[in-house]
Order: sequence, then C-alpha cells, then structure tokens
Amino acid sequence: MRYSVEDLLNYCSKVLESAGLNSKDAEVAASSLVEADMRGVSSHGVTRLRTYAKRIRTGVIRSDVNPSIERDNAAALLINGNNGMGSVIGRKVMQMCIERADSYGSCFAAVNNCNHFGIGAFFTQPVALQGYIAIAMSNATASVVPYGGAEPMIGTNPLSIAIPTGNEAPIVMDMATSVVAQGKIIQAKKEGTSIPKGWAVDPNGNKTSDTELALAGAMLPFGGPKGYAIGLLIQILCSVLSGANTDRNIPSFWNNFQDPQNLGNFFGVLRIDAFQTPDQFYSQIKILVDAIKTSRPGPGIETVMLPGEIEFNAQLRAEKEGVELSQAISQDILSLADEYHVDANILRQR
Amino acid sequence: MRYSVEDLLNYCSKVLESAGLNSKDAEVAASSLVEADMRGVSSHGVTRLRTYAKRIRTGVIRSDVNPSIERDNAAALLINGNNGMGSVIGRKVMQMCIERADSYGSCFAAVNNCNHFGIGAFFTQPVALQGYIAIAMSNATASVVPYGGAEPMIGTNPLSIAIPTGNEAPIVMDMATSVVAQGKIIQAKKEGTSIPKGWAVDPNGNKTSDTELALAGAMLPFGGPKGYAIGLLIQILCSVLSGANTDRNIPSFWNNFQDPQNLGNFFGVLRIDAFQTPDQFYSQIKILVDAIKTSRPGPGIETVMLPGEIEFNAQLRAEKEGVELSQAISQDILSLADEYHVDANILRQR
Repeated sequence: MRYSVEDLLNYCSKVLESAGLNSKDAEVAASSLVEADMRGVSSHGVTRLRTYAKRIRTGVIRSDVNPSIERDNAAALLINGNNGMGSVIGRKVMQMCIERADSYGSCFAAVNNCNHFGIGAFFTQPVALQGYIAIAMSNATASVVPYGGAEPMIGTNPLSIAIPTGNEAPIVMDMATSVVAQGKIIQAKKEGTSIPKGWAVDPNGNKTSDTELALAGAMLPFGGPKGYAIGLLIQILCSVLSGANTDRNIPSFWNNFQDPQNLGNFFGVLRIDAFQTPDQFYSQIKILVDAIKTSRPGPGIETVMLPGEIEFNAQLRAEKEGVELSQAISQDILSLADEYHVDANILRQR
Repeated sequence: MRYSVEDLLNYCSKVLESAGLNSKDAEVAASSLVEADMRGVSSHGVTRLRTYAKRIRTGVIRSDVNPSIERDNAAALLINGNNGMGSVIGRKVMQMCIERADSYGSCFAAVNNCNHFGIGAFFTQPVALQGYIAIAMSNATASVVPYGGAEPMIGTNPLSIAIPTGNEAPIVMDMATSVVAQGKIIQAKKEGTSIPKGWAVDPNGNKTSDTELALAGAMLPFGGPKGYAIGLLIQILCSVLSGANTDRNIPSFWNNFQDPQNLGNFFGVLRIDAFQTPDQFYSQIKILVDAIKTSRPGPGIETVMLPGEIEFNAQLRAEKEGVELSQAISQDILSLADEYHVDANILRQR
C-alpha cells in the first residue's frame, strides 16, 4: 500500500486532532510518525498512530500544553514537559536550546514530564539543517538488561546526534542503545515473524528468536558493557538530572492509559560558529565525508555509508514516490477513521 | 613486580622532568600513567613512559605551555592546546570548563594542537568527584574501519563520561570506540601473546588473532554501525570543530618524533545544580545505583556492576597495596634511569 506523504500527513493529523491535539500540534505529531516511515524506521511510524490517538483521547497525554522552564541557568535549562505530546514538546525545547546557543554558544536542557518522543532524528536533523550540532536522547520503560544482568533495568534509551555538512546530507546518528529498538520486536510480533537471536533474552536470560518470549524477557544492550554504559548514562541524564521517572518506573506506552509516563528527555545544541569559522568547518567536513565515502569497502559492500545516509535518502525518495505501508499497518490506521470521525478517503492509494 | 604508588609516581615524574617538563606538569603527566596502571588499564600506563619521555625530549611535545582561548562564547570555547602534554593540557581545559559551567550551567571546549591524552577518566573522574558531570573525548590516529569498510579511517577515539553519586563511587564510562583500545594489541605484541578474533582485521579485511597482522590491518568498531557512528562523531567534534587534524592525518604516537600530532579533544562540564537540586539528584541516583547493583545477575555473574566500578575499586586497592607491573614493563621503565639521569633506586619493590 503506497500513499503520498501529503495524504498520509493529512490523515494522521486529522486523527490526532480529533483525538484532542490542536491542529498545529497535530501536524507536528503526524510529521514525526510519517517521517519515521519515510526513513524506513516503521517501528516508530504510523503503526503507533492508534496508540498515540488513544493516549491523547484518554488524556494520559495532555493537549494544548507548552514546555515551561523550571530552572534557568543561561546554557543549562530544567524544563517541565507538562505531559504534552513528546514530538511536539521536543521540537519546542529544541527551539529554546537554539535560542540559548545563539547567545551562549551551547545549551543543554533536561526535561521532565515527557512522553514517548518517537524518532530522535525528528529533533536533531532539522536543527542540523539549520547549521547547528544537535543532540537528543530519551529514557524509556526498562526493557534492557545491564551487562551481566538478567533483569530489565534500562530502557532502549535512544540517542540521536546530527552534524551539519553544508550543502550535503547531514550526518545523523539515531539509534537505540539496545541491539535493536523494541519497536522492531513489537512490529515483528504484529507481522507474525520471528527475530534474530542476539536481540533479546527470555525471562530466564536465554537468547531467543520468539517475539513473545523476547517481550516477556528483556533486550540486550548493543556492544556489551559499552552499550550498557551509554544506555545507563542516558537514563541518568534524562531521569535523575530532570527529576523524571527512572526507566523502571515508566508506565507502558502500549498498555497503560491511566498513568502519565513522566519520562525524561535531554536535548542539546552547539552553535558551529561559536567554536569554529563556518568556512573552515564546512570545508573540512566535506573533505572528511568524501574521504570516508570513497574509502575502500569491505567484501560484499558497494560503498561505505555515513550514519543517517540511508535514512536521509529514503526520506527524499519518499517525498517523491510516497510511503509504502504493509497491509496490516494500512488496515490498522484506516480502521481508525470511524472511531475518530475522519474521512478514510483522504488516504488514496497511489 | 609491585611498587608503591608514591615511588612509581616519583620515578615517572623525575623521568618526565628530566625529559623537559616542569616539575608541576611532570607530576600531572606521571599521575595519568600511574593511575592507568592502578585502574588496570595498563595499555595506557607506564608502558608508555619511554615514548612520552622521548616525545618531550625531542620537542615533538612542547614543555612549559598552557592552553590558550582562540574563540570565546561564554559556554563554548575554542582552545589551542599549543602542542603541550595531553594529560596536562586536558586537566587545565577541564578547569576552564568548570569555571564557565559555574557561570553558565554548562560549557564545552573544542581543543586543537593536542597530543595523546592517555585515559579519559583522568579528566572526568576528578571532576565528577567535585560534583559535576564531565565529558572528555579525543580523536586518534586512524586505525578503525568504518562499518562496511576495509580501510582504517577512524581512530579508536575514546569517550569518557563521569557522573557524581555523592558519597558513593562515581559512575565513570571510559571506553575506546573500537572493540578494544589499540594499546591492548600493542601490549599483547610486547608480551608476545595473541589476541581474540573479533578485535581486528588484517590488511585484507579478514579477522585475525595475530598482533602483527592486526597492527598492519585495522581494528573493528564496537557494536557495528552504532559504534562506527559514535567514533565518527567523536572525530568530527574533536577535529573538524576544533580545526585539529582528522584521524587519517595524525602522525603516529609511537613512531613519528618530528611532526606534532595536532590531534583534537572535546571536553564538557555540566553543573548539577544548574539543572536539579543536589538533594534530589543525589537521593535519586542512590536509588538507581542500589537498584542496579542489587538486580538479579545473569548466569555465572555474582553481582551486576556499574560502569567504572571495577576500575575505581582497583584504584583504591592500588593506593594501599601498590601497583603490579609485568617484568617486561618494569625492566622497560627501569632502563630509562641511565638515559634520563634518574636514580633507579627510587623504585623499590614492595
């Protein structure tokens, strides 16, 4: 099922608006979902529309709220997300960080009372396209074992960092600190497929390819003790520093529609010309990018890629050619039309 | 061979002072080496004393220099390391970041004209013990392949982040972004042992356990594409942002005594109470630390550990019990006594 970006955005926007968001916030929230599908990160795409809409409708995510500053120290902010929609609050906090970085060269913000924020690149890539270095991270419901542990103590805690490159595609790292994002296991379960061994352990700590056992058990951190350390540090920056829930105390995004998640985010912006002349920065990054892309590939590899290159190209392609959704996901979102009084005909297959 | 920390510090200090450092800087530089051995990171310990001393004596590392600010934007600094000793310059830049974070809540510094800085925890752990969150990273001579590549384009680019915990041991991540630090391969070669497969590839891109082939080839990034992305981002922050050499252009620490390395560092400090009340921060981090340490361990594991816990405990133990050096390393550093006119009897075996 292939849809134009415009139609998909329009449809998702209408559903989220009907659920309770104002039209401007609904557009931002819909963009986050559709961009995830455009970038090939369908685990964070419109497959989540149903749950987001329900969370908004039930009021477990609040509509019509803005982030508010709780502590203000020039280049360090403590912000209350006021339990608003994650993608919406995150975009607004990033804007605050940009304004502070314009004055002080850099700014970091710890944010409490947040909700699931979707793909991290939604916050970092546009800021890099404006010529700043951008950082976004979030904690999440504990689902990953510490290195050497059998009990989930850490979320999949995503980390995104984006670097501007001038006229070229920005370099965008956007990753879960588990081997894969939990959404990929949830989606595999939805689609009835198995997962590779090495992603997750069952409740007894054994590696498993069964999605149900994996979701009942826990996921493995990427890169062993190093990925564990990074995931834990993200937990600390997002929760302990902000005052939000630590990962073990975050109510489920999927199943709990009573208790606000109160998860935490940590955002940062560095202004390029606070550190370096833009001419020097952009000429040097071009040399580096070209050197890596033309470096000798390993066996079976055509070209060495940069972080985020595949996703950025996919996003550009989807703008022209539309977004491909599986039949299951397509049916799932179309079935929301009645419930939210939205015209299903907005979604015309291309 | 076991030596007291005091004797080892004293001996290394004297060698470095004789090589050209002033006595205060020699003490700092010696501390970095000895602390590495105390923490069990002997690849970055006194095994490097001979090369550091030679680099200082030949003038490829400059003595009696301080870091100087080239661009000043409140919470963002561009700093020239003036080709001084890495550990000494790094400690001074961290102090500048602390002072700025005291005023603005956070501060980051990109530093050019640097030298190999040793273990990252040397910069971050003491700052965390003072109650700040500290970040240190460095680029390094290219020795790691990009994900999917066969050519070394990225250094082992170490990253250290330390978090204060009040009265407990700080949480200290200190890692190379290769599977292991190259120093471990160098040390294995020195000791005539082989390395596990999966650390490195030979010049044809095949995994190898032979130290010579590994050093002629390249190392693998940790965690596949994720570790590659982190290593590359560190390269960009340390070199492109600072104006230092990119990883492929950094002269060898071990073999080149003519050309300054001009590598780059990136340091950062976040002031806890700029974001959160210290009471809240320290009570919450204690709850988190206790929860992780008492969480159910996996099969064959006694207790789940925190990042840096093993190294911190080893450091405390070494303070009491002294530092164990292999016979080869012990002989290597003792053989410097004549060359640098230092009394070998300073080093009394315990």
